[in-house]
Parts: sequence; structure tokens; C-alpha cells
Amino acid sequence: MTKLALAADLGGTNIRMAVVDDRGEVIGDDVKLPVPAAVEPPELVVQIGEMAEKCHAKLRSRSIDWKPEVVAFTAPAPVAKDFDGVLTKLPNLPTLVGMDLKGEIEKLFGLPVFIENDATAAAIGENWIGAGRGVRNMICATLGTGIGGGIMVNGEPIRGKDGIGGEIGHICVEPNGHPCGCGSRGCVEQYASGTAIVRLASERGMNVETAKDVYQACQAGDPGAREVFLEMGRYLGMMLAGLINTLNPEMLVICGGVTEGWDAFADAIANEIRFRAYAVGAERARLVKGELGDRAGMIGAARSAFLRLN
Amino acid sequence: MTKLALAADLGGTNIRMAVVDDRGEVIGDDVKLPVPAAVEPPELVVQIGEMAEKCHAKLRSRSIDWKPEVVAFTAPAPVAKDFDGVLTKLPNLPTLVGMDLKGEIEKLFGLPVFIENDATAAAIGENWIGAGRGVRNMICATLGTGIGGGIMVNGEPIRGKDGIGGEIGHICVEPNGHPCGCGSRGCVEQYASGTAIVRLASERGMNVETAKDVYQACQAGDPGAREVFLEMGRYLGMMLAGLINTLNPEMLVICGGVTEGWDAFADAIANEIRFRAYAVGAERARLVKGELGDRAGMIGAARSAFLRLN
Repeated sequence: MTKLALAADLGGTNIRMAVVDDRGEVIGDDVKLPVPAAVEPPELVVQIGEMAEKCHAKLRSRSIDWKPEVVAFTAPAPVAKDFDGVLTKLPNLPTLVGMDLKGEIEKLFGLPVFIENDATAAAIGENWIGAGRGVRNMICATLGTGIGGGIMVNGEPIRGKDGIGGEIGHICVEPNGHPCGCGSRGCVEQYASGTAIVRLASERGMNVETAKDVYQACQAGDPGAREVFLEMGRYLGMMLAGLINTLNPEMLVICGGVTEGWDAFADAIANEIRFRAYAVGAERARLVKGELGDRAGMIGAARSAFLRLN
Repeated sequence: MTKLALAADLGGTNIRMAVVDDRGEVIGDDVKLPVPAAVEPPELVVQIGEMAEKCHAKLRSRSIDWKPEVVAFTAPAPVAKDFDGVLTKLPNLPTLVGMDLKGEIEKLFGLPVFIENDATAAAIGENWIGAGRGVRNMICATLGTGIGGGIMVNGEPIRGKDGIGGEIGHICVEPNGHPCGCGSRGCVEQYASGTAIVRLASERGMNVETAKDVYQACQAGDPGAREVFLEMGRYLGMMLAGLINTLNPEMLVICGGVTEGWDAFADAIANEIRFRAYAVGAERARLVKGELGDRAGMIGAARSAFLRLN
């Protein structure tokens, strides 16, 4: 029998929720709402309850009997292998530090709750029914405001004892490079995230606000914008080449909003990988774009929850 | 009952052999001989037979009944998960390319033979009865002529589909840095291996031939030599910080001849890690020196063989 999960992707800006079945299908549409600024835990719990009710109503209107067995959440925070459910470090949602997310949501729904780091969940989702179907060893990089990552080794995500497994956005690619919010300098996040693309373009005198603006300038033939994407792809390739030599993965999946500009930077990634990684490893690691879009995290969280439920 | 392996560490310069039991103890001394220059496969097989006879004689002289159940070898070459025993890429032993090492040694001894990459074997050895006893997630860097690496995730070595798992010596730490034999530039091997230490010292006008010379100059108070080790430690720390953020390991084990100069560079590694890695990850990953010395590879190969025999 089909099992259902109520799955939610809690990000720094939005929360997205849907009912996901045990083959990864989203039943009905998903509900997406902004996370209120400086949201406090009780307010978030109310919002989660309301969003669930909306999901429920959507299914009811289609005469689908809604009985999830499990609730799956992502969090933009370290989620260790033996995570107890209490949020600790949340750079983008500091008002939630100390919240017992697992406990609160269990109380709200009376169902088992499982939480996964957002970028790890995206990797699990892509690995389950997305670009990485059937692949046991892959690296997933999510390019957005920052760079998140998820790593599958022998079919298992690397979470790490402290939940920082897969934080590939904070691999150094420029020893004395741009300062990073993490305290280091020259992290790849400072050269290949959406934020970085805007900065690199501004440094070249372009007047842009989003990575999309830079991509549109690139499509319109702006040589500076083109350079930005070449530089961004080169740094991303440098980081990925190191991971190829370290983990010898079968696939590299690039996700996140920035992949809209895929054709402007994919070749630069591939060229840098060919230059820097062992040839067999570079050839082995297929470079592809994620297939699940914004739903990767939600779907991956559901998968993770189903697996742990059994 | 105690099981025995005939274990050998085949390096670019030397071959080391001993009988190792299933608790990791080397029974009798080990036999070490140089690998003849441009050695051809038949010549190597003869030498392996003679060395085994020496091991046997040593045990006989101590009235130990020698009956190994398995033969364990390392090779300075990529050893994939499903390695068939035929050596392909051997930068340091090119005359052995194409040799069916597994087949030849099986014929020689009439015993099952298992082969492991040398640096991966060192990691397995240190993880079994060395510095990493009881640790399930660790990174082992072997600093010698080059930099080899072995990675344990959940107690298992990362070999990779093509055998290049753990090649952490070829992670880039300086985008436009010194050219590397692998074809890339600025690999950490070019900044923190024994060879690199000599180069960095020569660039500072020192007249040295080995990393040991540089270390002795450092101990004698030479400020240039001190700088070399600080630079070397910094680059090594940069690479390790990236792996901490990626894999969140419990331990970092540094092995190889260069560790003789441990007190000249260990602090520089630790400082760089604190600067660049997530704080919880930096704190989690204990930085230690290997404990098995030159025997790590041989002992790790034996462990790997015992595990596969069962």
C-alpha cells in the first residue's frame, strides 16, 4: 500500500510543504509561504499547522483520503547523524536557535517526525527519483544564496557526527580570497553562489541585483557577464575536481536557482575538472543538472523519513 | 585460531614483507629490499618468492610453523573496488604496467591474493591497530615523496569505482600554483610533500637535499626552514579543513617519513584548520601522527585481506 509523508522544506526565506508518497510523487500541489522575518518558534508552529491544513484541503477537494504516516522536514542547519531535533546553528533563521523542531512538530501532528539538513535532503531527493536515480556515489551541489552540498557514498548520505558533512560550499578555492561568512576566506561559496555571481559582476562594473540579471546580460552578449560565469564555473570545477580525486563519484548533480544559467557555466566546470582531476575520475563523474528543482529538498526529506520509519 | 597473512607493501622504491597475524601483529621481523630499477614482472615475482622464503626462514629459526592463509599486497597504483589484479597506472613503477600482479602471486604461492592501494592500506592499518583504533570516520594523509591518502567512512575505505578514492594529494590549494605531475597546478602535494619541502627550502636559497635536512636546519634555528614548515602546514591544513567540512571526520592521521618533523608543522596545520573549518568539525577532528610507521601499509593490506577472506 502507498505510504504518505507530510513533507516540508524549511529554508531561510520560504517554507514549502506537500504530501509526498513513497515513490516520490507529490500528491496535489505544494504550498509555499514566506517564513516571517525573525519568526519565533510558536508562530512557526502555527504556520506549519495552517500549511498542513491547506495541503489537506487540496487533497480533500480531489477526494484523496489524507493519512500521512510520517512528517518529514528539512532545516537550514547542521543535522547530525544522531540529531535530537533541537536546532542549534541557523545562520539564516537565528530566532529559531534552541527550538525543539522535532518535538514541537510531533506534538502538533501526533506523528513521527524526521529532520534532514536541506542540502543533504536535496541530494537524497535527486538520488532517489531525480538526476541521480540508480547512482550510489554522487555529489550534489546546490547553488543559491550560498552553496550547499550533499554527498552520497555507497547509497548513503554523509551527515557527519556534527551534521557538517557535505558542507562543500566552504571548501577553499582561493587561499587569500574573499572573506566568507563562515570565518574563512576564499570559500567556493564566495565565487560560485548566486550572491557571488552578483558580486563578481559588480566588481566588473555591472549594475545587477540578481544572478538572473547577470545571466540575461550574458545571453544578450555582454562580455563581462560571460567572464563572470566562466570564472564561477572554473572555481566550481576546481572544488569538484578535488572531490573527484577524493571520492571518485559517478555523478555530479548541480541544483538550485543558479542552474537557470547552466549553459553559461557548465562547460567551464567541465573544462576545469578535465584540467585538475585524474582522467579516469573526470570521465567517470557525469556532470548534470538537478531534475527536481525546488522540490528536491522536500522530496528527499520524505525519502529519508520513509527509510527511517521502516 | 590465529590466522596468518603474508603481507607486502610494494612501493616505488622498496618492497617490504612480513607475516602478519589477524590481530595485526608482525610475526618475526619484516624483510625490506629495494625494487630494482626498471624491474620487469618476472624479475619481481622471483624477488617476491625469495623475500617470502626469507620470512619463512626467520619464522623457522624461531620454530614458528608458517602457514599463511592469504597473501596481501599493496600497490602504488589505483586499486578500484572491483580491481581485477592487473596493474594499470603506476607513475613510479612504469615497467610493471600491464602486469597481472594478483594472478602472478596466486600462481607463486597457491593462495588467495588481495591487493590494496598503498595509501588506502596505510589508512586501513592505522584504523585497525594504529592511531585510529575504534574510529569509524577518519582521513589519513601519508606525506612522502608525494602525498597519498586514505579515507574511512563508517568504517569502510573509500576506494572508488576507478580506484582514485582518497587521492587527496591532488586537491588544489593554489589555483595558479606549482605544476603537478598529475597535469594540474597547485595540488597540495606540491606544497606539503617531502619533495615540496625541499623545493620550498631551495626557493628560499637553502642548500638541502631532503626534508630531513630542512627539519634539522629548523631545529638549529634557521628562520627560512621554520617558514617552510609553517607554509607547508598551512597548505596541508587548508586541504584538511575542506575535508572536515565535506566529511566531518573524527580523526586526521598524518603518516609518512615527513612526520619526523611533526613538531615543526603540526601547529600550523591545526591553526589553519581552526581558521577555515566549521568550529564543531575542527574540534571533532583530532589531529594525530600515525603510529605504525613504515609498517602501516603492510599491516593494512593484511587487514583488508583477512576481511575479504571471510
